Amino acid sequence: MPTVTVDLNADLGESFGVWQLGDDDAMLDIITSANVACGFHAGDAATLARTCRAAAARGVRIGAQVSYRDLAGFGRRFIDVPPDELIADVIYQIGALQALAKASGAAVSYVKPHGALYNAIVTNQAQAGAVAAAVHTVDPNLPVLGLAGSAFFVEAERVGLRTVPEAFADRSYRPDGRLVSRRERNAVLSDVDEISDRVASMVQRGRVAAVDGSTIPITVASVCVHGDSPGAVRIASAVRDRLTSDGVALAPFS
Amino acid sequence: MPTVTVDLNADLGESFGVWQLGDDDAMLDIITSANVACGFHAGDAATLARTCRAAAARGVRIGAQVSYRDLAGFGRRFIDVPPDELIADVIYQIGALQALAKASGAAVSYVKPHGALYNAIVTNQAQAGAVAAAVHTVDPNLPVLGLAGSAFFVEAERVGLRTVPEAFADRSYRPDGRLVSRRERNAVLSDVDEISDRVASMVQRGRVAAVDGSTIPITVASVCVHGDSPGAVRIASAVRDRLTSDGVALAPFS
Amino acid sequence: MPTVTVDLNADLGESFGVWQLGDDDAMLDIITSANVACGFHAGDAATLARTCRAAAARGVRIGAQVSYRDLAGFGRRFIDVPPDELIADVIYQIGALQALAKASGAAVSYVKPHGALYNAIVTNQAQAGAVAAAVHTVDPNLPVLGLAGSAFFVEAERVGLRTVPEAFADRSYRPDGRLVSRRERNAVLSDVDEISDRVASMVQRGRVAAVDGSTIPITVASVCVHGDSPGAVRIASAVRDRLTSDGVALAPFS
Amino acid sequence: MPTVTVDLNADLGESFGVWQLGDDDAMLDIITSANVACGFHAGDAATLARTCRAAAARGVRIGAQVSYRDLAGFGRRFIDVPPDELIADVIYQIGALQALAKASGAAVSYVKPHGALYNAIVTNQAQAGAVAAAVHTVDPNLPVLGLAGSAFFVEAERVGLRTVPEAFADRSYRPDGRLVSRRERNAVLSDVDEISDRVASMVQRGRVAAVDGSTIPITVASVCVHGDSPGAVRIASAVRDRLTSDGVALAPFS
Repeated sequence: MPTVTVDLNADLGESFGVWQLGDDDAMLDIITSANVACGFHAGDAATLARTCRAAAARGVRIGAQVSYRDLAGFGRRFIDVPPDELIADVIYQIGALQALAKASGAAVSYVKPHGALYNAIVTNQAQAGAVAAAVHTVDPNLPVLGLAGSAFFVEAERVGLRTVPEAFADRSYRPDGRLVSRRERNAVLSDVDEISDRVASMVQRGRVAAVDGSTIPITVASVCVHGDSPGAVRIASAVRDRLTSDGVALAPFS
Repeated sequence: MPTVTVDLNADLGESFGVWQLGDDDAMLDIITSANVACGFHAGDAATLARTCRAAAARGVRIGAQVSYRDLAGFGRRFIDVPPDELIADVIYQIGALQALAKASGAAVSYVKPHGALYNAIVTNQAQAGAVAAAVHTVDPNLPVLGLAGSAFFVEAERVGLRTVPEAFADRSYRPDGRLVSRRERNAVLSDVDEISDRVASMVQRGRVAAVDGSTIPITVASVCVHGDSPGAVRIASAVRDRLTSDGVALAPFS
Repeated sequence: MPTVTVDLNADLGESFGVWQLGDDDAMLDIITSANVACGFHAGDAATLARTCRAAAARGVRIGAQVSYRDLAGFGRRFIDVPPDELIADVIYQIGALQALAKASGAAVSYVKPHGALYNAIVTNQAQAGAVAAAVHTVDPNLPVLGLAGSAFFVEAERVGLRTVPEAFADRSYRPDGRLVSRRERNAVLSDVDEISDRVASMVQRGRVAAVDGSTIPITVASVCVHGDSPGAVRIASAVRDRLTSDGVALAPFS
Repeated sequence: MPTVTVDLNADLGESFGVWQLGDDDAMLDIITSANVACGFHAGDAATLARTCRAAAARGVRIGAQVSYRDLAGFGRRFIDVPPDELIADVIYQIGALQALAKASGAAVSYVKPHGALYNAIVTNQAQAGAVAAAVHTVDPNLPVLGLAGSAFFVEAERVGLRTVPEAFADRSYRPDGRLVSRRERNAVLSDVDEISDRVASMVQRGRVAAVDGSTIPITVASVCVHGDSPGAVRIASAVRDRLTSDGVALAPFS
């Protein structure tokens, strides 16, 4: 019987100057791919350099987590950026992280949009096309990590980028496969066992229970776990342990 | 008789969003090397992308003009940045511009510090070493453009970087070879003929008149002309014409 | 016969550090109310201090032109800021300008939202309410300058603020009284005579020709002229001259 | 016998967007004066609004903690800001906080420079004069909190400001009354009992042991405790308890 393999990804490098966020070192012992901030929503250069070195030391893959330029909003607020500006912003961010990753002896292996940009390009075709074009311009061999069925994936595939679909360990899904908005109750799960069970189901059977009780299909090459709280480290660790004990192999997709 | 060759460099890409600075297109028809801002003192990503494309279209070399993080002060205010932060900031900036330059079909060919950072590392050994280390980390084959005799050049040569000494077309020199501070009168020259004569002397005879009337030796591989005013375009053009008519070849050093 | 009186307003203080925008001194000789930036889309503090002093010296009223926090986009990009954050951002900006205006011997006499925020709160009720609440919190006697019929005016009047409707000298109107989007052709007028005629009609007869040729009613207590180009100074001057020669009195509304 | 009275101050409002720093609520139950950030080194407007409301609710005085414009460096890096720019920056910051404090039903009662600016104006006369001038321009009745014997106090007194000398609970002093640099060992004390004893001595006897073992005189109207860690809350609480049990009255100086 062939072994099922999956990637575990989380957002890292999200401190800024004196402000610390998340426990990057703990998360790097759990995940296989690190979505590293690029300075637009978080991540001063010295923080990013440290995160790249720590990831490289453990063989964890480095992805560029590109964002709107919005430190005050942590990239969580939609900004109506014209596509040509967004293309340049994304190229700039990837390039900056590439140099820091290279300095750590590693490389940027993929790109994942952050926060409001991630959400916007599920449907906003102009911005989706801009991000896809930017990634392709930097390196047509860079895979993008995101949501299956999104406008972003349509645009990315149109230009020939490899798309890697992810599922969220601790988020509720609507019957149509979209995420339940964070503004609604039950959007985020917190029970460790429930989360572990859901991830096991998503990864091994390609199914998950939607918020209305129905079972929906889901395609998962990578599972996103959150890393910005002590509780998150515990959840991520439990998810990893469950997958491992189920015989699932954890390995980077890139 | 061998032809004398010299490079002409100027600061470009120093607009930011809606704010325009300098006439980049006019300058690109005059110079051979463009010191392109990297976003820390000037240059939103879309501006930098446009500047790289325009430089690449004319075969003008692109240099990364790295700076302190200081949009409000245009990088002209000394900031006491610890070396490890400065190393990361410089790597970040070079990488960002590398990606934009590559997108334009060109590459970053050299590095030149900007403004207060340029001035600080004439003597500030810790910051000089940080900039040199950052450039070396990104690419040990990247030359650095700066002031002969500076701490920066000492540190750059220590790590094996090629140093390219520049002279300033419109600045007064002290008898010790340093620039007269902009806070003093006579720091900046404005007479086109005088400037052209001085450049011709610097490039062809390796000498220039210091502010006290003495003649001092100067080593020049590149002449820096300013590009942020219509008058500057006229001066840069006159300098180029004078060198050309004197039989000096203009060519990038990188 | 009673004299018709109208205010002339323009955006000022929109330089930032080394970057200059507009000819504030020329405009201050023409207008009666200056919408002064507050640092979020433009205006470093030293620029704002100078603009306040120049306005105070001429008796031109100072308004706080509050904006999204977006220097890179000059406040022209919609940002999905939650209302509680927007309230605090607007209070912060008004307070900052109040202190600088007071230092110049004047005061902030009104508030006008800028750019994308101005446009958003024509219809975005949550953000409209946030701006109104912020102004009311700072000083319930501060009038707000904006678009008649906007959600912003509804919310402002709900909390008891005085609303001052403005018309745009050089913009085309739709039959419903809204502005033609800048992304469409004919959105901005440039013929000085046509602009002067339109302003005269708007101010003296309360009517203007819409883009489809129909005549629509318009209520105008202040006319907005643009100030960010030499051409704009000429247009603003022509508008002022026309109104004056028609016997219209120019005076601040606040 | 008259009761000795002293003020306890700490830095608050130093979160920024998603990034949290310090336990403001815990500290507000201990201190009598809150040095609230003004957005230049920390403190988005919504954070500052919350901090002002929390301080106002407890009757804790609000001071404006003005800083260099340096989010990435948390205001801890010297910036060579020209005096006229610094004056405007300080007025801007005080005004912004005044509006937020007023919205909370309180007011800005004093000004305390932050971080590298605090340290710079111990000796940098030009910047010291700029800060003093800015405070005086905003309100000549605003006291300033700082270091006795500093250039800042000389300049502040020259323009007629009330100066309030503070001592640091957990910092070592040199024999000349200056603080031991944070770059040296023993600069910061951590033993709760030792800190409490020192504060008691400073407040009640006007003396403290310098780092060389000698006893030096010190004038203290306010004691600065740090608030950016759980340990700091414990220390601040111990200092307060010690002073109270010694019969010292705690009350704001403003």
